[in-house]
Amino acid sequence: MKQSHLFTHTRREAPKDEVAKNAQLLIRAGYIHKEMAGAYSYLPLGLRTLNMIVGIIREEMNALGGQEVHLTALQDKKLWAATDRWDDARVDNWFKTELKNGNEVGLGFTHEEPLTNLMKDHVRSFRDLPQAVYQFQTKFRNEERAKSGILRGREFLMKDLYSFNADEKSHAEFYERAKLAYARIFERVGLGRETYATFASGGSFSKYSHEFQTVCEAGEDTIYVHEAKKLAINKEVFNDEVLANLGLKRDELVEKKAIEVGNIFTLGTRFSEPLNLVFKDVEGKSRPVFMGSYGIGPGRVMGTIVETHADEKGIVWPEAVSPFAVHLVALFDEKGTVEKEADDLYKKLTAKGIEVLYDDRDCAAGEKFNDSDLIGIPKRYVISEKSLKAGGVEIKERLTGRVVMQDISSL
Amino acid sequence: MKQSHLFTHTRREAPKDEVAKNAQLLIRAGYIHKEMAGAYSYLPLGLRTLNMIVGIIREEMNALGGQEVHLTALQDKKLWAATDRWDDARVDNWFKTELKNGNEVGLGFTHEEPLTNLMKDHVRSFRDLPQAVYQFQTKFRNEERAKSGILRGREFLMKDLYSFNADEKSHAEFYERAKLAYARIFERVGLGRETYATFASGGSFSKYSHEFQTVCEAGEDTIYVHEAKKLAINKEVFNDEVLANLGLKRDELVEKKAIEVGNIFTLGTRFSEPLNLVFKDVEGKSRPVFMGSYGIGPGRVMGTIVETHADEKGIVWPEAVSPFAVHLVALFDEKGTVEKEADDLYKKLTAKGIEVLYDDRDCAAGEKFNDSDLIGIPKRYVISEKSLKAGGVEIKERLTGRVVMQDISSL
Repeated sequence: MKQSHLFTHTRREAPKDEVAKNAQLLIRAGYIHKEMAGAYSYLPLGLRTLNMIVGIIREEMNALGGQEVHLTALQDKKLWAATDRWDDARVDNWFKTELKNGNEVGLGFTHEEPLTNLMKDHVRSFRDLPQAVYQFQTKFRNEERAKSGILRGREFLMKDLYSFNADEKSHAEFYERAKLAYARIFERVGLGRETYATFASGGSFSKYSHEFQTVCEAGEDTIYVHEAKKLAINKEVFNDEVLANLGLKRDELVEKKAIEVGNIFTLGTRFSEPLNLVFKDVEGKSRPVFMGSYGIGPGRVMGTIVETHADEKGIVWPEAVSPFAVHLVALFDEKGTVEKEADDLYKKLTAKGIEVLYDDRDCAAGEKFNDSDLIGIPKRYVISEKSLKAGGVEIKERLTGRVVMQDISSL
Repeated sequence: MKQSHLFTHTRREAPKDEVAKNAQLLIRAGYIHKEMAGAYSYLPLGLRTLNMIVGIIREEMNALGGQEVHLTALQDKKLWAATDRWDDARVDNWFKTELKNGNEVGLGFTHEEPLTNLMKDHVRSFRDLPQAVYQFQTKFRNEERAKSGILRGREFLMKDLYSFNADEKSHAEFYERAKLAYARIFERVGLGRETYATFASGGSFSKYSHEFQTVCEAGEDTIYVHEAKKLAINKEVFNDEVLANLGLKRDELVEKKAIEVGNIFTLGTRFSEPLNLVFKDVEGKSRPVFMGSYGIGPGRVMGTIVETHADEKGIVWPEAVSPFAVHLVALFDEKGTVEKEADDLYKKLTAKGIEVLYDDRDCAAGEKFNDSDLIGIPKRYVISEKSLKAGGVEIKERLTGRVVMQDISSL
């Protein structure tokens, strides 16, 4: 894409009311726009990165055998009353509104209830199980405060997968496969090194749930990290009993702040029982389906990457989630030689299927370099009179600052 | 995809409260699920078809130079008060809710206001124009009645593009290009024959807007069709003045019921003036941006296709929007010969990049054929003992019922 065509411009300063580093950088670089606290629109660069993250998650969910759906945001009170999650005294972050006839409806903050209900149309016998169903869908949560940029929104995209098994044993097998898929996702988006599978409280149906926590000072959670074993324990369950269970000694773990980038949870029959999602087992006996839930917020992942992959000049995207693979920066001369070479290279790279943002704007070199650092594409190709004299294109890695000259014909 | 793995099942009867043909068929075939009147979830088959439609629209919007974004559903009252569209007396289909601090927020029924406001960060001079910005985004409209299935929802996906030009002349050029892009979209999704560019009322900034109306008895609109000229006039402006303007005679046009599947509209400075989206022209003078809007609901398009492309047995998808290209139906024998041949063919077609739904279920031939007719994939490949004896695979066109035998090795 030609940068002269991109409608967004970078800006020197973030809005004064924006305190989160992720939002400050993403707004300054033109990735997102703040509509109100906790509600951000995605601009072309931001949507590209969000879609890269979504694409990676989708691949891993499909590899797990997940089937993609898209449920509504509008929620029927009846289903949530049945599980005792309608009352504001029980769930304090509902957005509720009403139909013309006065009936109250909610905006889904999660989707256990409607999906459990929906599955009743399709699950009758043990032959219809197991199933894994997922979606990328906008959640609404009426957060009291929303000051963390895209880390915690009042409206945000979520990938939520739900598993449906005949018994706890087959659930446990799926759960372990899902844990591996989650680890792969964080590895692939570039958060592998600093993200820990973290033991957290489990609820009625299992001792633990698992959170995926990325170590980061901006995080709201406190975890205890065991570096050697590459695992962590959430503060809420960091006690002698849990340490003994896991065979760990307290002084082997280090306290860190972290962002919860994903979580997987055994639901058991918490929803299938009240909503009556049952199946006939091999003996013809009616039994409730055994469920699990598996969430990741692609926007929160994006915000976490910015929090952990940036320097004083701007964002430093990992390759897999960068909006473009290459930032081609042309410093035009008066004769038009640079422009011609840059145009040709842009066409050549694009024809190879390489996604290029081509800075063809008529502005000063300093402005181009500052914008490029801020936008954070991992590879910068600079073409100028100087580079052409020196042999071709100057290639600079955003992460390391390392510069090499390369012959244009070799690209 | 193997049909034994697909979690949805077909059903003989639609829910009793469902009166719209599109929803009846789509629910029976397992494409959608009704959450409440006017709010439907998309199941795997339905999401596939919806995404095919979205993909076609996206290609045409990108070809127009559109840049994709994704705005929030939550809406700031302030922006809508500025254009006098907040008050329920002015706009009667708002869903409104409130933040914890008591501030009212709305759920976007359209996005002129927030996008116009957003563009103020990026448009300063005539050099920043023209621009075309679009999104696929969920709209919320508090419809009094919602009985038309996915033709008119309380919550539905919409593609809305907005154009930003320096003057009316360049706007008019873009508008004409958008009109052609819209015609191509309806052609590509399989509605070309029955869809008419229709003159409708224009508002303050132009004599007409254009609706794209698909002739269909289930439609809510009345249009007057000129077959020879492949155009129509909406009843609301079907009068002698308009006929004279267009050089048409009243008796050349035929009254029809139709579904509005898209519309394009000159907004002029209706939103840029109150929201102060201005730019400096070549002479340095500040002027309001001249805007247009261009909408299509992919779900409504899908519902319209079902209304117009179905028979007594079920849906008949046009190829470009079918969830799968081929429905491979295997009638297993006891020796396992058919299963082996069908498995091999499934792998072969899939390896070629052909999307196949493979009915590998252990059920009667009649059930498989009925389901296949209902689901409506354009090509059915039947493999059975009989077909293998007769030379290979029986290929049946869903639309015409035409059957040919084909050698397996030629596929």
